[in-house]
Amino acid sequence: MTSPFADLTSIRHVVGVDFGTLSARAVVVRASDGSEVGTGVADYPHAVIERGLPDGDTRLPADWALQDPADWRAALGGAVRAAMRDAAVAPESVVGIATDFTACTVLPVLRDGTPLCEVPRLRDRPHSWPKLWKHHAAQEQADRITALAHERGESWIARYGGRISSEWEFAKALQVLEEDPDLYHRTERWIEAADWIVWQLCGIETRNACTAGYKGIFQDGRYPSTDYLKSLHPEFGDFAQTRLGGLPLSPLGARVGTLTAAAAALTGLPQGIAVATGNVDAHVTAPATCAIGPGQLLAIMGTSTCHVMNAGVLAEVPGICGVVDGGITPGWYGYEAGQSAVGDIFAWWIDQGLPPSYLAQARERGEDLHEYLSARCAGQPVGGHGLVALDWMGGNRSVLVDHHLSGVLVGLTLATTPEDIYLALLESTAFGTRTIVEAFDGAGVPVDEFVVAGGLKRNPLLMQIYADVLRRPVAVAGSDQAPALGSAIHAAVAAGIHPDVEQAAAVMGRVERGAFTPDPHRADAYDALFAEYRALHDYFSGRGSAANDVLHRLRQRRNGAAAANSASQQDGGVSS
Amino acid sequence: MTSPFADLTSIRHVVGVDFGTLSARAVVVRASDGSEVGTGVADYPHAVIERGLPDGDTRLPADWALQDPADWRAALGGAVRAAMRDAAVAPESVVGIATDFTACTVLPVLRDGTPLCEVPRLRDRPHSWPKLWKHHAAQEQADRITALAHERGESWIARYGGRISSEWEFAKALQVLEEDPDLYHRTERWIEAADWIVWQLCGIETRNACTAGYKGIFQDGRYPSTDYLKSLHPEFGDFAQTRLGGLPLSPLGARVGTLTAAAAALTGLPQGIAVATGNVDAHVTAPATCAIGPGQLLAIMGTSTCHVMNAGVLAEVPGICGVVDGGITPGWYGYEAGQSAVGDIFAWWIDQGLPPSYLAQARERGEDLHEYLSARCAGQPVGGHGLVALDWMGGNRSVLVDHHLSGVLVGLTLATTPEDIYLALLESTAFGTRTIVEAFDGAGVPVDEFVVAGGLKRNPLLMQIYADVLRRPVAVAGSDQAPALGSAIHAAVAAGIHPDVEQAAAVMGRVERGAFTPDPHRADAYDALFAEYRALHDYFSGRGSAANDVLHRLRQRRNGAAAANSASQQDGGVSS
Repeated sequence: MTSPFADLTSIRHVVGVDFGTLSARAVVVRASDGSEVGTGVADYPHAVIERGLPDGDTRLPADWALQDPADWRAALGGAVRAAMRDAAVAPESVVGIATDFTACTVLPVLRDGTPLCEVPRLRDRPHSWPKLWKHHAAQEQADRITALAHERGESWIARYGGRISSEWEFAKALQVLEEDPDLYHRTERWIEAADWIVWQLCGIETRNACTAGYKGIFQDGRYPSTDYLKSLHPEFGDFAQTRLGGLPLSPLGARVGTLTAAAAALTGLPQGIAVATGNVDAHVTAPATCAIGPGQLLAIMGTSTCHVMNAGVLAEVPGICGVVDGGITPGWYGYEAGQSAVGDIFAWWIDQGLPPSYLAQARERGEDLHEYLSARCAGQPVGGHGLVALDWMGGNRSVLVDHHLSGVLVGLTLATTPEDIYLALLESTAFGTRTIVEAFDGAGVPVDEFVVAGGLKRNPLLMQIYADVLRRPVAVAGSDQAPALGSAIHAAVAAGIHPDVEQAAAVMGRVERGAFTPDPHRADAYDALFAEYRALHDYFSGRGSAANDVLHRLRQRRNGAAAANSASQQDGGVSS
Repeated sequence: MTSPFADLTSIRHVVGVDFGTLSARAVVVRASDGSEVGTGVADYPHAVIERGLPDGDTRLPADWALQDPADWRAALGGAVRAAMRDAAVAPESVVGIATDFTACTVLPVLRDGTPLCEVPRLRDRPHSWPKLWKHHAAQEQADRITALAHERGESWIARYGGRISSEWEFAKALQVLEEDPDLYHRTERWIEAADWIVWQLCGIETRNACTAGYKGIFQDGRYPSTDYLKSLHPEFGDFAQTRLGGLPLSPLGARVGTLTAAAAALTGLPQGIAVATGNVDAHVTAPATCAIGPGQLLAIMGTSTCHVMNAGVLAEVPGICGVVDGGITPGWYGYEAGQSAVGDIFAWWIDQGLPPSYLAQARERGEDLHEYLSARCAGQPVGGHGLVALDWMGGNRSVLVDHHLSGVLVGLTLATTPEDIYLALLESTAFGTRTIVEAFDGAGVPVDEFVVAGGLKRNPLLMQIYADVLRRPVAVAGSDQAPALGSAIHAAVAAGIHPDVEQAAAVMGRVERGAFTPDPHRADAYDALFAEYRALHDYFSGRGSAANDVLHRLRQRRNGAAAANSASQQDGGVSS
């Protein structure tokens, strides 16, 4: 009989850390087979900074969304330590760490990586803070970036569905330059949080192939030209060269350095273990769910949804977020699309309040309010609520790429119930997904299977709706921590345990295929509702001669009113 | 010093009873000056019967709304007795009674006035019950009535804005004939509840000029012709002649009989006092608020809104409910328009639930939820919520005359709050009213002043919104029981205390003129929002080549799904 301790030396573990919108989640994983042996979560104390800076004095305009890098550091240490405690494995068994992050979450830093918001005299300047992915106040800049690219016939614009998002690196940076030029000029590097957190781990600045391609307009070996950038703004010409460039891109799964003494102290992991290149929470999930073959569209469904899919062909798909060579796994064209708000919409509806009797019944049945409302919807015939909704409460990422759109609810009657609206909102996000799937199909990048990871995979009503609306089988991630598991897979590759991501995914990833299959009868009924959705989609997009641009006008009026109100409040002109 | 009892013989009182949607309200009024000396309310035990008959076995299809005549009788006795107790005046001082009712609330009766639903073997037949004004299941019949009238060039159709409502006498009767012909053939008289209740008081069947004109298509001295009715349905030819006609119309304020012994026993009032002709809750309110001059548009704002206005000219106003000679006061052309749901919409929104923190704060502040939400909206800049809504949750009475439309909410974001939506719903009803006001103005029947009665007059936020949106001064009824006071005014005329309604109104009516005046700055901002409303109004009306008929398709799908579901539930095919 061998001693149990003898095995410790042969079992190797890797750590994956997933930085989400509100918290970081770490898993400790057995590198040989992907078993998750420990998990830890740490919330960001400041969560999303939307109304005012933490100083309590500096208010933020509409559509802003910031985060605090100190929260990320603290959550890194907290989540990894918690996961290691939960795993109860020897720290010496850990051979590598990899991270993934929301994107485009981007911040201005000094040459040594110090965030500008941590430079004391810049701390009360809103533009010194990291802009979270869902910061939507750079739409004007994004529109000009897009228009100029078309005007000049820039070849890269087609790789982004014909539109650059206000969420991405260039739009957000240009907003800084135009609104706080002094702060812009103090920005020595403009870096994705995905790469900044790796810098904190190994002390080396890197740029990963995924965010550089999808969020940084890096295509065919280069960023947009100086000439193009200068035409956007005379002082923006050297932006890519000085703030982004100067470093080769790191392929996903590469080892970019080793854990520094400081990072070892923060996390409790051994100094010197492999640190993998940065990655994005969505893309990193593909190997964790074995969804890296062509036609397997992976949706990471949480507050928002990201869709990623590999393909052997390079096609121009209108309205997708982007296509990047090696953006998901080296050797494939990686496509990305997205929906700005999904779970956020369902939560928004519940936050509007529910009848007291519903709250009491949910409590009695031990269900959370999503489960309770879903149960009340069960068995409803398709269209029985008489409603159709546009899922644009957080704007529209694909295929309209317009964050100043807003949501619409059509068909309300005095008999409409809270669960009717909840169901219509669930369906609206499925219709949004179908619009994206049809864009891929139409561009010659067919979608055969829909794979779901993220918290929403646990709602069987929602999953069945997606199967019916998409008329495709829905597979479900085997792990509840699929992004963190995906990072762990990359850590295992960076540590040299598996030769590449595809082989690591084959042994470490997990998925339940065909978990939900379409009901042909309900799918037919949803076809008719989807036709209504598409007609409203086109009308409210504001594009084309038959459309109504009301959503943009309402948004403008709202933002104008809010600004006027805030100005007059600061003048003491309006009592609160 | 005279004895106080001596005066009792000289002070004369009248009783007005207002039959609303959920209750009857009686006032005892001093006939000399309109002072309200006592009030009583009695709820209808069965309220609105919408899902199934009181037997618990017979389910009702979508869009049905019935009432129980026994409830009306009981509420008549209860409300009058309570008002007399409250007034503490001698019954002998009461010299007359008048009533008003919701309309078109209509029922099938035997020749002696017995409601068919009180004939035991007919009690489980849904069509034997009174159809409440908001019974909206006869849209198909209404559409055919309208289409055939235009086809044949019937002169009366222009008096109803070009459209006959599904709420009215002919549509509801035709629905009975087509869905339960046997029941139709057992119907000896088809009578408004407004006239039926007078029958209960004085034992005489009458037909008042108001409902006969507005709801019964009585114009220029006659009902629609036998020929026309026969073309609608071969067995419908004698409908007007046999079920409605055979009696001269009674002008408003006329004495039609005296209180019977049975009615005296029910109400506790003296047998033999004057009983006035029936009236409608909206129209009867005009004298109570001194709004009987041309250009004074009176809105009775409660669960729904009725608009009534006198004018010296007979004009064709598209989409109004009707114009009737003497329909409001003898000697004027009385115009009526309406909004199917107003307070109902605000209540619907609150019934969707509110955040628990709101409920707690409202409780703490001792405010009802409408007051609390209104307070949270106070001071918001116009358009600050980024929303615009269509107020069609109960269909659209004027100017589209289509009860199968439904509501729309546009501009929702993840930052939208419950009070934002509440405010947008308040505004949407003001936009709906402005659409009606513009229809009058455009047809040469100008509106100069907006007078409000009904429960919603107590919401100052709402009243200011109406002043701003309409750009007109808003006057407010002085009485909280304006319809009942209006009935009392008619009772005083019927009893011979005042010579006519105009002179009675001058001494007994009460109004606060200029209670709210438009703020020009907010009115300008509302002009812009109203333009958005109008564009959406036209688009979602489903009419015209640029419109989208989605609301009707969603309604059809909903009703079809509900019918299929209910059929399969009766088969035991679906578990609940």
